[in-house]
Amino acid sequence: MKLLEDRILKDGRVINDDILRVDTFINHQVDPALMVECAKDFAEHFKGLGVTKVATIESSGIAPALLTSIEMGLPFVILKKQPSKVLNDDLFQTMVTSFTKGTNYELTLSKKVIDEKDHILLIDDFLANGEAATGAIRLIRMAHATVAGIGVLIEKEFQPGNKKLTEAGFDVYALAKIRSMSGGNIEFA
Amino acid sequence: MKLLEDRILKDGRVINDDILRVDTFINHQVDPALMVECAKDFAEHFKGLGVTKVATIESSGIAPALLTSIEMGLPFVILKKQPSKVLNDDLFQTMVTSFTKGTNYELTLSKKVIDEKDHILLIDDFLANGEAATGAIRLIRMAHATVAGIGVLIEKEFQPGNKKLTEAGFDVYALAKIRSMSGGNIEFA
Repeated sequence: MKLLEDRILKDGRVINDDILRVDTFINHQVDPALMVECAKDFAEHFKGLGVTKVATIESSGIAPALLTSIEMGLPFVILKKQPSKVLNDDLFQTMVTSFTKGTNYELTLSKKVIDEKDHILLIDDFLANGEAATGAIRLIRMAHATVAGIGVLIEKEFQPGNKKLTEAGFDVYALAKIRSMSGGNIEFA
Repeated sequence: MKLLEDRILKDGRVINDDILRVDTFINHQVDPALMVECAKDFAEHFKGLGVTKVATIESSGIAPALLTSIEMGLPFVILKKQPSKVLNDDLFQTMVTSFTKGTNYELTLSKKVIDEKDHILLIDDFLANGEAATGAIRLIRMAHATVAGIGVLIEKEFQPGNKKLTEAGFDVYALAKIRSMSGGNIEFA
């Protein structure tokens, strides 16, 4: 998606070969008009698949995922992060290890909001190592629901997330695929 | 706002005299159509005040705040929570103590996204004791910006947040004001 790629080139900041900051238009300050265009693109790509709900992982994916749910006329679910295991029979939960941040958290889903009739479209801001996405898929499967696809704003193609998810049979759709950031130069796929 | 009050009566769960769960339509599963109507109401109430940006506190207020920013055609800022003080000259930060949850966190704002020319509309899901809102106001003032008003989906009128903010001179606007939840019965103001 050229609009997003151009914005990344203009306002993204390459911190090192692995880390891209997008905190003036996606993560911290959000450009709503850009997010609406991204949501339209996701809705177009994933239409006709029988998606019943759009989900994301708290919290950087909330903006594009909410707008995708609005474009598709579907309910929206935020998978919530907890610092540690919660004692609650009404929740599915799974531990996610973020190699990027060096942290662990419990990702949780209420048994009331997703069930075996659901076909879930997962939307997030970044796909890097795929830990958050695979944690979300584990939760969706605990609820006996299925995954319709995974849409991300930005994929770092040089990290293993896409390969892992694609090999597992998922439709992974990235609006901007970054092949390399070495030497501070962003190269799209 | 009758639409929101009716939905609270239908799907809200009173846990005790102080705690209301809205996790099937606001916090965990989100009803996008309801959030769009709430955003239109906020945009109407706060129009003509010279608001330059809409802000919220990560993460339950992101949905209504983002949609309000879209209704108003303005940029959107998410004040980010960090578990502990960050060493970063590019950030304003302030500690917020949540009496409700018994936790502390650092609320942070990049110096790049709000400045002295900004007049900020703060949108959140709940107003209870007002700790998060007063933390957000401290950050906005550190950036030498001003606060245009505070819009919340649900105010628990029997907790001190509204009184504290109104006495400090802020325009506090709640779409649903709960006077009491004693005995499990929700009474609106």
